[in-house]
Amino acid sequence: MGKLWDKGYKVDRLVEKYTVGDDYVLDERLIPYDIFGNIAHAIMLYKIGILSEGELKTLKKGLREIWKLYEKGEFHIKREDEDVHTKVENYLTEKYGDIGKKIHTARSRNDQIILDVRLYMKDALLNIETSLTSFSKTILSFSEDYLCVPMPGYTHTRIAMPSSVGLWSHALFSAIFDDISLIESVFALINQSPLGSAAGYGVPIPINRELVAELLGFNGVQKNVIYVQNSRGKFELIIIDILEEIMIDLSRFATDLIYFTMPKFEYFTLPREMLLGSSIMPQKENPDIFEILRGKVGEISSFKVALSNILGKLHTGYSRDLQLTKGYLFKAFDITLSGIEIMNAVFKSLHVNTEELRKDFTREIFATDYALKLVEEKGIPFREAYREIAKNIDKIKSPTPEEVIEKRIHLGTACNLKIEEDFGKVEQLIYNLNGIMENFHKNLENLIISS
Amino acid sequence: MGKLWDKGYKVDRLVEKYTVGDDYVLDERLIPYDIFGNIAHAIMLYKIGILSEGELKTLKKGLREIWKLYEKGEFHIKREDEDVHTKVENYLTEKYGDIGKKIHTARSRNDQIILDVRLYMKDALLNIETSLTSFSKTILSFSEDYLCVPMPGYTHTRIAMPSSVGLWSHALFSAIFDDISLIESVFALINQSPLGSAAGYGVPIPINRELVAELLGFNGVQKNVIYVQNSRGKFELIIIDILEEIMIDLSRFATDLIYFTMPKFEYFTLPREMLLGSSIMPQKENPDIFEILRGKVGEISSFKVALSNILGKLHTGYSRDLQLTKGYLFKAFDITLSGIEIMNAVFKSLHVNTEELRKDFTREIFATDYALKLVEEKGIPFREAYREIAKNIDKIKSPTPEEVIEKRIHLGTACNLKIEEDFGKVEQLIYNLNGIMENFHKNLENLIISS
Amino acid sequence: MGKLWDKGYKVDRLVEKYTVGDDYVLDERLIPYDIFGNIAHAIMLYKIGILSEGELKTLKKGLREIWKLYEKGEFHIKREDEDVHTKVENYLTEKYGDIGKKIHTARSRNDQIILDVRLYMKDALLNIETSLTSFSKTILSFSEDYLCVPMPGYTHTRIAMPSSVGLWSHALFSAIFDDISLIESVFALINQSPLGSAAGYGVPIPINRELVAELLGFNGVQKNVIYVQNSRGKFELIIIDILEEIMIDLSRFATDLIYFTMPKFEYFTLPREMLLGSSIMPQKENPDIFEILRGKVGEISSFKVALSNILGKLHTGYSRDLQLTKGYLFKAFDITLSGIEIMNAVFKSLHVNTEELRKDFTREIFATDYALKLVEEKGIPFREAYREIAKNIDKIKSPTPEEVIEKRIHLGTACNLKIEEDFGKVEQLIYNLNGIMENFHKNLENLIISS
Amino acid sequence: MGKLWDKGYKVDRLVEKYTVGDDYVLDERLIPYDIFGNIAHAIMLYKIGILSEGELKTLKKGLREIWKLYEKGEFHIKREDEDVHTKVENYLTEKYGDIGKKIHTARSRNDQIILDVRLYMKDALLNIETSLTSFSKTILSFSEDYLCVPMPGYTHTRIAMPSSVGLWSHALFSAIFDDISLIESVFALINQSPLGSAAGYGVPIPINRELVAELLGFNGVQKNVIYVQNSRGKFELIIIDILEEIMIDLSRFATDLIYFTMPKFEYFTLPREMLLGSSIMPQKENPDIFEILRGKVGEISSFKVALSNILGKLHTGYSRDLQLTKGYLFKAFDITLSGIEIMNAVFKSLHVNTEELRKDFTREIFATDYALKLVEEKGIPFREAYREIAKNIDKIKSPTPEEVIEKRIHLGTACNLKIEEDFGKVEQLIYNLNGIMENFHKNLENLIISS
Repeated sequence: MGKLWDKGYKVDRLVEKYTVGDDYVLDERLIPYDIFGNIAHAIMLYKIGILSEGELKTLKKGLREIWKLYEKGEFHIKREDEDVHTKVENYLTEKYGDIGKKIHTARSRNDQIILDVRLYMKDALLNIETSLTSFSKTILSFSEDYLCVPMPGYTHTRIAMPSSVGLWSHALFSAIFDDISLIESVFALINQSPLGSAAGYGVPIPINRELVAELLGFNGVQKNVIYVQNSRGKFELIIIDILEEIMIDLSRFATDLIYFTMPKFEYFTLPREMLLGSSIMPQKENPDIFEILRGKVGEISSFKVALSNILGKLHTGYSRDLQLTKGYLFKAFDITLSGIEIMNAVFKSLHVNTEELRKDFTREIFATDYALKLVEEKGIPFREAYREIAKNIDKIKSPTPEEVIEKRIHLGTACNLKIEEDFGKVEQLIYNLNGIMENFHKNLENLIISS
Repeated sequence: MGKLWDKGYKVDRLVEKYTVGDDYVLDERLIPYDIFGNIAHAIMLYKIGILSEGELKTLKKGLREIWKLYEKGEFHIKREDEDVHTKVENYLTEKYGDIGKKIHTARSRNDQIILDVRLYMKDALLNIETSLTSFSKTILSFSEDYLCVPMPGYTHTRIAMPSSVGLWSHALFSAIFDDISLIESVFALINQSPLGSAAGYGVPIPINRELVAELLGFNGVQKNVIYVQNSRGKFELIIIDILEEIMIDLSRFATDLIYFTMPKFEYFTLPREMLLGSSIMPQKENPDIFEILRGKVGEISSFKVALSNILGKLHTGYSRDLQLTKGYLFKAFDITLSGIEIMNAVFKSLHVNTEELRKDFTREIFATDYALKLVEEKGIPFREAYREIAKNIDKIKSPTPEEVIEKRIHLGTACNLKIEEDFGKVEQLIYNLNGIMENFHKNLENLIISS
Repeated sequence: MGKLWDKGYKVDRLVEKYTVGDDYVLDERLIPYDIFGNIAHAIMLYKIGILSEGELKTLKKGLREIWKLYEKGEFHIKREDEDVHTKVENYLTEKYGDIGKKIHTARSRNDQIILDVRLYMKDALLNIETSLTSFSKTILSFSEDYLCVPMPGYTHTRIAMPSSVGLWSHALFSAIFDDISLIESVFALINQSPLGSAAGYGVPIPINRELVAELLGFNGVQKNVIYVQNSRGKFELIIIDILEEIMIDLSRFATDLIYFTMPKFEYFTLPREMLLGSSIMPQKENPDIFEILRGKVGEISSFKVALSNILGKLHTGYSRDLQLTKGYLFKAFDITLSGIEIMNAVFKSLHVNTEELRKDFTREIFATDYALKLVEEKGIPFREAYREIAKNIDKIKSPTPEEVIEKRIHLGTACNLKIEEDFGKVEQLIYNLNGIMENFHKNLENLIISS
Repeated sequence: MGKLWDKGYKVDRLVEKYTVGDDYVLDERLIPYDIFGNIAHAIMLYKIGILSEGELKTLKKGLREIWKLYEKGEFHIKREDEDVHTKVENYLTEKYGDIGKKIHTARSRNDQIILDVRLYMKDALLNIETSLTSFSKTILSFSEDYLCVPMPGYTHTRIAMPSSVGLWSHALFSAIFDDISLIESVFALINQSPLGSAAGYGVPIPINRELVAELLGFNGVQKNVIYVQNSRGKFELIIIDILEEIMIDLSRFATDLIYFTMPKFEYFTLPREMLLGSSIMPQKENPDIFEILRGKVGEISSFKVALSNILGKLHTGYSRDLQLTKGYLFKAFDITLSGIEIMNAVFKSLHVNTEELRKDFTREIFATDYALKLVEEKGIPFREAYREIAKNIDKIKSPTPEEVIEKRIHLGTACNLKIEEDFGKVEQLIYNLNGIMENFHKNLENLIISS
């Protein structure tokens, strides 16, 4: 069957190829959401009298068939199908004739794609959050295990002040925890049902947008129909912004590990199963995983640029440029999810070399401690104590690393991280999240089952 | 006086120039926050016994002097001062000798700059939100005034479906309303006191970070001291991400107005006082303001790239690259604030040309309405009705624009925007915001006054 | 068969998946170049005594087999093959045992991938240039056909001064012509053989890099072996920079055409076979091709950001981040090539509506002409003439568009474009280009044939 | 005096501030070029009979006055002057009445700004090239001095193969040499006179664009007047693209040096005058210069994004968005020039610690040499030799670093860099460059002197 907008003549082949792009591939990911949206839309059309009860039943039957084909991996979109929406409508029309031709009443494909992507966003955000909370637990446990293990703190890649393995790894936890809160804010923002905007200006039919929102488990209706269209790309960008933050946070620690696992440092060791070799150099064991993760920050940053560039040109109302936004969202989720996964595996198998870490507590690392000692014990003004020590770095007598770590007792330092509070917060997060996920899936499954 | 880290030899002049950059200019903006931070830090040092009551009193006196010089526009930073922190410490030391040399006890400049920028962020976010809420009211009133004035709706720059001026402008309100909610989420996230991280690893002195947080009006302490440093640049990026969203939203309507104010359209007219001329063409009246606003989206997008690029390279612990993040934050706030201001002025003086808008309700704009009429009245399946109409576009009889607008009654369309709800939400926002602002300023003023 | 760097233990599955990425898909495009590189390397190894004549013969035989499989579409890379280099070496080893194990002497995969990509770059740049020169001819002919057809010139989207269709379209020719010159500069720069850098530090064997360069048709050897590796990503970026320029140039005219084909303008018309419809609105004929092209500028701009971000983190010597650069190069070439193709099709079928163009020669467009007339005829200083006319816009008497166009006789205006010179330059370009292409292909084909 | 386009009413103050932006600051840099352009334009107007000989004389006198004020630092642009062009015309009109009002005949400010920036581009490109060639000599001398000093070669931050300090630093020379060739290509491209495009559509007066081009020392006229306008921003972007390449190249070695000067490595040492301290840690000597340079890559990359984003929105004909392009060009030149300068200073004072470098020639670095020895001496296929050595890394007997370096004799390795050829090439570059620079300056100075 042909295009939904077929008017009896053939589109130029070059134009067709150019405009379809790789939509037919990308849309595979949207099939389930398109089915959910179709069912909800059909129910609504029935409720407002556009479809009869029998017609609704037939449409549900057809959509359940598609679902089953999809689950068996047998429902695929070809370039000539243009997109998932066309494929579904054509299936219904081919099989059920006139009834299929009714499903598109009072909506447009612009409408549908926003809905499909919106549902995908919710699903994918919940997956990311699940993955992040699970990773949070991994790092918290790691931090707890090595809480007071001395580790040199660096600034400017030069040894700075005493730190600990727990403090270092907990800094990654803290970053991730902030990221989760951003994800939750954005989830709340996008959790509105777009369906009913049609081509962006609504329809002259009293459709019931609130009902569709409820059926699909949204928190409400995204009201203004023009804004529904204008928010396309915008919501994608907001999400990628946060995914990038996660990747930057992970990459920072990947970069730390690139250096801290060098034979020159050997603060940490990865099992050789996680290192790769060279085709020419027999001795090599390379930390490729960290380099790829670091490189992927560049990729995800570039996605933001693509979106900003695309969006910055647009006026109100749909333009085809927006077609290009979808792929970036998908890739950003994939990159972030695999990045979390790999870092989770890393922190589960990272070996801590306590002795190598202690070795780098050389004289200079204690300089500030000594200056502050002069302040505390002799009442010397700090700036003078600083200059005094600066002139006598080589006279510093090294205490043990453990001794100096123990003195870090103010909030947020090695010996006062209140890590148990964080465990509690993560448990609470997981509990809430499980509730939301269950709800999200139950709602959608109900649509299929009840069909 | 010299650098805080002076050790008795001169730094290479080229190196000095290269590393100071334009910090001494940018830091002017941070002077008040640095003073607040100094006072809070001094109070805390007194409370933990590092400073005597007399010393605290003297420091407060000195800082109040700086505040007064600043208010008179007489406190400036020169290149040789390096930065605001050095300038302030040097002032205190020059005037009050040893007492000034004590103020830097248990903190570092890394610590201070994060605090200064954090306070600036809060202040600037509140300003942006204030400006946005006020703009929201302007647009809402505009929408209300022209709620049902017919306006052609476009997709792909081709006439699509009936719309209204109210619906169009309310889409901008909806965008801004979402942006405000994002700002509030981020405000909540960054509202944590960083002071006490020192160089990123804390200090071996039992400083009271909670007290400083309270004195400065923060919601709490940003716990992990390494994360405090790692969050530098990250929080800046999160904020710029949102400012960019605002700019994209504004730019979209600026772009609409570039076209809709063309003599060919003349849907809207701007007073000639807001249009600019040409040095060679006597007839010109150009919408430069919209073009500049549109261009500034490119600028703010590029700031994100600068930050992503800078952050993506870093390992844990301070590196000097971070110095470069500050300027982007400042510029992003300036760009966004002036963008909101200009669009506010636009919507306050925009003339709506009802007749020109009606003129473009040509036959094609009713095509979908007719197809849906066939569905509703004759029960023809939509896809068939669509094809029927497609073949007979030129036979469509045009109703009046008002007639078709009135049929848009489902939620989110011209005749069902529930705009009064939005007025209520904005009032609530303003009420809450005023409370937060008052609180923010009172806290900081108290520090000065009570000194 | 396994990995080239197999050392008797299994790599973690997650790590394997994460690091291979989509290399196995992307590398399909590199198969022919990898074969050429293998043959040249084998010949060189024979010449320096590492391979016997018989071994060389066998290797050539094996590589010719791979070539044939490739030509039949039967040589594919799977994820477990890691990449094209591994796949080829494994094929040779499986079939010819020890002889296959010798092919990798004195080189590394880093070496090979740079060579493969370098050959691909040359090939693709030549294709782009061919496509651009052919497009140049299309536009030049279009310009010639409509050389003096009056067309309003715009600035700030407001009518500015008299222009012509020929002048407008020739501006696109001029842009493309500059782009071609940039392509030629870059082709000259990258036309150096990288092979022999091994892992970036050469080998302790007197390989003959000059011979390999000659066999593969390079202009010489890229000397410093470390720089060979450091230039990876850099050359890719340089090329994408230019491809972006091409896309920006095309997009500018695509944007012009989005507006100039609006029913409100109708300066130009595209055949309906090149326009797309809507699933809901029966009347729609949308210029999706231009919108997609415009959006793709955002994509290609983002590729630069990905590369800049990736490269900006690196130190000297290969890091795995570089793996990610390849895909962007491929996509940038694809996007640009299809963009040129579509715009070529557009200019071949674009209908010029002379009457619509003339209609917009309204009074204001002549204002500057009148001011300059006052200068020429009455000696009034320009700035006064300007003000005089500004006050009397509505008294301007309109000449015919043709009359005013005819007065544009200085170099570079409608009536003095010297378009025949440009035809000559393009012919010369094509002549030179054909020589280079023939040479390029002959060289590589010889390697296969003579094997 | 007022605006050039003053029509008797006041522009909205907010609009004025928003649109002028920081043009009045940025334009300071363009004053000399604007003067040159004015003189050349005046001479041309005289030659075609618009100005009398006396008028030309007066204008030249006035422009020479401005030149003198500028040289004394007394010619400044204020916000109310809008830009340099207005300031100059107003000066002439205030002082010489009607004669000043004639200078703008047949040109527009769009025309002038492109000319001013084009001349600036030429000047700045020549400065960059001068600075780069001088830096090239510094690195080449450094490479020669340490040609065969052993240095470990790294891949993936793990020790890979034997290398030398000469080979490493020469890789930077090679990068810079390529960059210079790109600069020369771009200089050739942009070396065309834009003047005469007026507002982008030429003028109905037979101006002599060829004469202006010759007077200003351009290689010819940029023909198509629309393309002149369309090339604005495009040429800026092309230049920034190359400046970014330079910065990436420098940053790579700055990054190398960040690590190679760590106490853990100490391959190289910088004099302490080039290192900076900390306000809290007395012991610190930080390589801030390298970090800032690295960060500035992010800045310059972001400029490209700003330009791409701005350009990607435009249609043909001037839009005000283009105003924003100028500042990025200026900043990119400043960043690059100071980056070259600082790296030049670094390589002039970098101390090479031969012993530390030799110390890292640990066993593994010889693994590939041993494998290749098995190939050469025993005829073992490489892949087998590789596996053999992989199993016996700890049995490798270390030769001296010097011994293995000496075996690198193929082209492009430590002992075969043909560095004397490179010295010759640089001398040739400098010779040519001096000729071009002399010519460029003589031409422009003549305009002033002969006035």
